[in-house]
Amino acid sequence: MDTLTIIKVGGKIVEEPETLSQLLSDFSKIQGLKILVHGGGRAATKLAEKLGVETQMVNGKRITNKEMLDVVTMVYGGLVNKNIVAQLQSRGINALGLTGADMGSICSHKRPIKDIDYGFVGDVERVKGKQISALLELGILPVFAPLTFDTQGNILNTNADTVAGEIAKEMAKFYNVTLVFCFEKKGVLADVNDENSVITQIDTNTFKDLKGQGIIQDGMIPKLENAFDAIQSGVKQVIITKADAIGKAEGTVIVG
Amino acid sequence: MDTLTIIKVGGKIVEEPETLSQLLSDFSKIQGLKILVHGGGRAATKLAEKLGVETQMVNGKRITNKEMLDVVTMVYGGLVNKNIVAQLQSRGINALGLTGADMGSICSHKRPIKDIDYGFVGDVERVKGKQISALLELGILPVFAPLTFDTQGNILNTNADTVAGEIAKEMAKFYNVTLVFCFEKKGVLADVNDENSVITQIDTNTFKDLKGQGIIQDGMIPKLENAFDAIQSGVKQVIITKADAIGKAEGTVIVG
Repeated sequence: MDTLTIIKVGGKIVEEPETLSQLLSDFSKIQGLKILVHGGGRAATKLAEKLGVETQMVNGKRITNKEMLDVVTMVYGGLVNKNIVAQLQSRGINALGLTGADMGSICSHKRPIKDIDYGFVGDVERVKGKQISALLELGILPVFAPLTFDTQGNILNTNADTVAGEIAKEMAKFYNVTLVFCFEKKGVLADVNDENSVITQIDTNTFKDLKGQGIIQDGMIPKLENAFDAIQSGVKQVIITKADAIGKAEGTVIVG
Repeated sequence: MDTLTIIKVGGKIVEEPETLSQLLSDFSKIQGLKILVHGGGRAATKLAEKLGVETQMVNGKRITNKEMLDVVTMVYGGLVNKNIVAQLQSRGINALGLTGADMGSICSHKRPIKDIDYGFVGDVERVKGKQISALLELGILPVFAPLTFDTQGNILNTNADTVAGEIAKEMAKFYNVTLVFCFEKKGVLADVNDENSVITQIDTNTFKDLKGQGIIQDGMIPKLENAFDAIQSGVKQVIITKADAIGKAEGTVIVG
């Protein structure tokens, strides 16, 4: 099996010319096949503000009404995605920007209303791995915006971490997949106040221990649960690291 | 050679759900390989207004400063393009949205300043036909937004008619290309006041005659000159018709 590296970067890194430029340099050094998944939340919030569309967040998740859906479609699918693609192309990387609607690559359904109505938010149903694989075989580097579609003609907003995770799980059928989550810290820290206390490797047993000892807590728990979910679905390794460390042997490696 | 139909539709048709739905029905009936090129000027003007970005037009052409470039990147590349793609997918058509930056498919250079500085407007240099052909061979229907890129990392705004024409000329190396320009009238009219006076066929000789007689005049002259330019570059036929007549034997056919 060929090696495939899937990298998820937040909006901030790709929205600013300097950090984007650094990311592309690091990115181009990674050997083998690659997929990039990006966010864009800050730029979406900024545009929404200018348009007088109120940004509502519940538990860190964006409530997506029709106006906000148009905003994220414009910002994620247009502004952020196309600027990344143009920048990658100028570095000689044959990038192609995609949403889940393109080639029907990521089908989802509108999240059912329980306590909260998230609006036009999609829970992923299916990733079309063969179509994505066909692009990779043409020498294309897919760049995914965090948008999916419901097969009924509607775009849906989907968390970028989830998009990256779902793509990784599907592509694990075809490739040796490494999934890299870029993060504001250097990795999972043994001491949240010490940037240099990165735990270099975590497996299911050490995860249980570290959780038990209270070393891993709060928002890091769901992040790692997602990582183990990917591992259990065949992804070879998941790396949590800082954007400026991708491609280097840094950060926390999550293994099965 | 396989048959390839390239259809250019204005923004209005694809921006409104009813006309878009009709277009898709008609579009799906066309046999053989297809490419769609869309505009989106009205939606761009509307968003620019909301954002307080002034729309400046000179001779019907949009002046594109940095703020307007972001607006058209969001509207053409995001909102309009992704909604068309999602709608096509819901009809079982395997659409993929593209700008010229994607796969480096349409390279351009920033228009040199002569009398007027059009800003971030691109004059097309090169269409990568082989890359587009590779997508068609995968059963993908490319949907192009009227955006190109300068190979230096910048998106540029490019007229949708020009994008369609340049794609048609390049693809004529690989396919029997029919280029269809959707238009507000049923075709080229012998009498501008009579919707039913469509001239069914025009070749270079009849074009000269009709121009000499003043039957073809004003804005129709550059439209037809573009059409003949495509024909002279190997495009088999160019059709000027109303959006609701695509796929039917209606409108004006321009032949060599």
